[in-house]
Amino acid sequence: MNILILGATGYLGWVTLLHFTAQGHNVLGVDSKLKQIMMVKEGVTALEIEQDPFDKIQAVNRFYGSDVKLIENDICTQGILKEIVTDFKPDTIIDFAEQPSAPLSMKNEHNAIGTIANNLVGTLRLIYAVKEINPDIHIIKLGTMGEYGTPNIDIEEGWLDVKHNGRTDRMLFPKSPHSIYHLSKVNDSDALAFACRVWGLKVTDLNQGFVYGMCTPETEATNLYPRFCYDSVFGTVLNRFLVQAELYYPLTIYGTGGQKRPMININDVVKCIQISCENPASAGEFKVFNQFTEVKSISDIANLIERVTSCPIENIVNPRIESEIHHYNPSNKSLLDLGLEPTILSENEIQKMTEWVSVRSSFIDKNIIKPQITWE
Amino acid sequence: MNILILGATGYLGWVTLLHFTAQGHNVLGVDSKLKQIMMVKEGVTALEIEQDPFDKIQAVNRFYGSDVKLIENDICTQGILKEIVTDFKPDTIIDFAEQPSAPLSMKNEHNAIGTIANNLVGTLRLIYAVKEINPDIHIIKLGTMGEYGTPNIDIEEGWLDVKHNGRTDRMLFPKSPHSIYHLSKVNDSDALAFACRVWGLKVTDLNQGFVYGMCTPETEATNLYPRFCYDSVFGTVLNRFLVQAELYYPLTIYGTGGQKRPMININDVVKCIQISCENPASAGEFKVFNQFTEVKSISDIANLIERVTSCPIENIVNPRIESEIHHYNPSNKSLLDLGLEPTILSENEIQKMTEWVSVRSSFIDKNIIKPQITWE
Repeated sequence: MNILILGATGYLGWVTLLHFTAQGHNVLGVDSKLKQIMMVKEGVTALEIEQDPFDKIQAVNRFYGSDVKLIENDICTQGILKEIVTDFKPDTIIDFAEQPSAPLSMKNEHNAIGTIANNLVGTLRLIYAVKEINPDIHIIKLGTMGEYGTPNIDIEEGWLDVKHNGRTDRMLFPKSPHSIYHLSKVNDSDALAFACRVWGLKVTDLNQGFVYGMCTPETEATNLYPRFCYDSVFGTVLNRFLVQAELYYPLTIYGTGGQKRPMININDVVKCIQISCENPASAGEFKVFNQFTEVKSISDIANLIERVTSCPIENIVNPRIESEIHHYNPSNKSLLDLGLEPTILSENEIQKMTEWVSVRSSFIDKNIIKPQITWE
Repeated sequence: MNILILGATGYLGWVTLLHFTAQGHNVLGVDSKLKQIMMVKEGVTALEIEQDPFDKIQAVNRFYGSDVKLIENDICTQGILKEIVTDFKPDTIIDFAEQPSAPLSMKNEHNAIGTIANNLVGTLRLIYAVKEINPDIHIIKLGTMGEYGTPNIDIEEGWLDVKHNGRTDRMLFPKSPHSIYHLSKVNDSDALAFACRVWGLKVTDLNQGFVYGMCTPETEATNLYPRFCYDSVFGTVLNRFLVQAELYYPLTIYGTGGQKRPMININDVVKCIQISCENPASAGEFKVFNQFTEVKSISDIANLIERVTSCPIENIVNPRIESEIHHYNPSNKSLLDLGLEPTILSENEIQKMTEWVSVRSSFIDKNIIKPQITWE
């Protein structure tokens, strides 16, 4: 299979690239370096020295005897993606290429508009490249569970059977995002649903929970790990807690910690994307999977890490505008039905991750953990 | 009241500017000339010689003894709108400033992305200007009934009370637009709903049907009419039929003509905007009115015009991808409850409009009426 990965050097793009390469697929990566540039601008670093992505790709090819290539370019630029799709002839395109930080999108007007423009224009370029060059290509798009917000009803997978005044319809699930970043992903989903409805494209939209961890069979085998962010701008909450525990910092909870979050181990992300590849959407189908394995409150997660590491917990003022007590019952039935066997966040799993962080503790920058950006 | 009108020289911006000026309000208009530029690019003209908008504003001020000013600038440019809002101190901002053509948005990738970027960035600039300078300003945003598409359930006004698995929530009505232009308006609505939810802004979103006519008390009194487009790119269907009838062209129906359309007379548009001004949204409220007065199928409209003018009807291949037979039952209760008395499309009304067109028949360009842009 020819698999084109957009945003291939990012946290999830990288493990996906490794995974499909290990399986013997023909993989091409594209990345604009946007994330690296933003990290420099925000003055944050990952838990490693930033490696040259071309060197990392060379190491992959040495290890697997593969011929993965990486193109450094921005899919938002007119014509780029059409040229790549024409030359590479992908069967599947997996799109991670987005500004991924909610706090960054809320920092100011410039970043808000930059986030929306980057993410939506990239998605539209993707839609037009596939529509005009080969509408049979299956698009797998990474979305987020944060698109739904926290409605007072159970969250279904992208669609909702609505009964109203004695009539029925299957409609897109109404979304209620709580950051500009999450709004940009709603825009993406709406654009992709439109492309399926009007032009008959084949799209799978993966509404993902927050991801934690760094170990997949391939990252461990190659010792080529993804970029691990733990800062307040780009880090996901559990990864940040792991670094705080290493520092005995303490674990900072935003507000009361009652906010419930869908979550998923990075190893399961890769499995979900493989399942999505193997079960493509049909022509005109906008297929949506909710891609998470567990729902926990932020307090529950912190308590679990406290039990393993003895690191204390501190509740700080919530920089976000969000409900801290709310109904939350999202479905993740589709991926389970297709065979996903979830990795559960056990004390053993936390122990393993803290050891991984511990080895890299000399790279930790204490000053980038506390939130600087508020939702106001 | 200080009323700021964005897109002030357009079809609806113009009659709104005249209306609030006639009432003695302090009015400031902003326009980027985007529409004029696009019309030149598309090779189409309106039913008039394009007048200099500053000359038209001078004529308004002579007639009413007013001091309306017009700023020629693009609200998408960073800082422009903040400066205007800071200086003018509007109580209400009425936003018509968008790329308004569905066919143009479907012409090619360049126009699609241009439409989405122009409309959404303008909306985001507006949100940030109000949020940062004075969140008490009431935003009135022109949306479109086309955002809803043609769902199999009755269409409510922006919101839907959803029951699901024994729980309830009031959620944004799921949208299903059928052109990139309509998608851009869904994006606008989502951004404005977000700004209300997270930042407490006050927004009224007017989901408007297609508009016809050119006569309001103020256009007739001043003889300063809005730009009247009848071409296949920018013209609305009924205005196009009026020009075809004048030419005895015939009236071209896209497909079977079974498509049902919500519609509104331009005079009622002005009344609806006045009602919206007088009943502002509260802090944090995303208020939605469906702004139309009648629903008719395209065939019904053509038949009515045929009865008055004896102009024959011709069904041509539908350039759009849309249902031609569908359920359609949208609500327009809110504006009626607030006192709107609808102008009905009578034979008498059609007779009056055909006379208005007839006087200007020397400006008609026959070559710009047939659709050139398909949805494929």
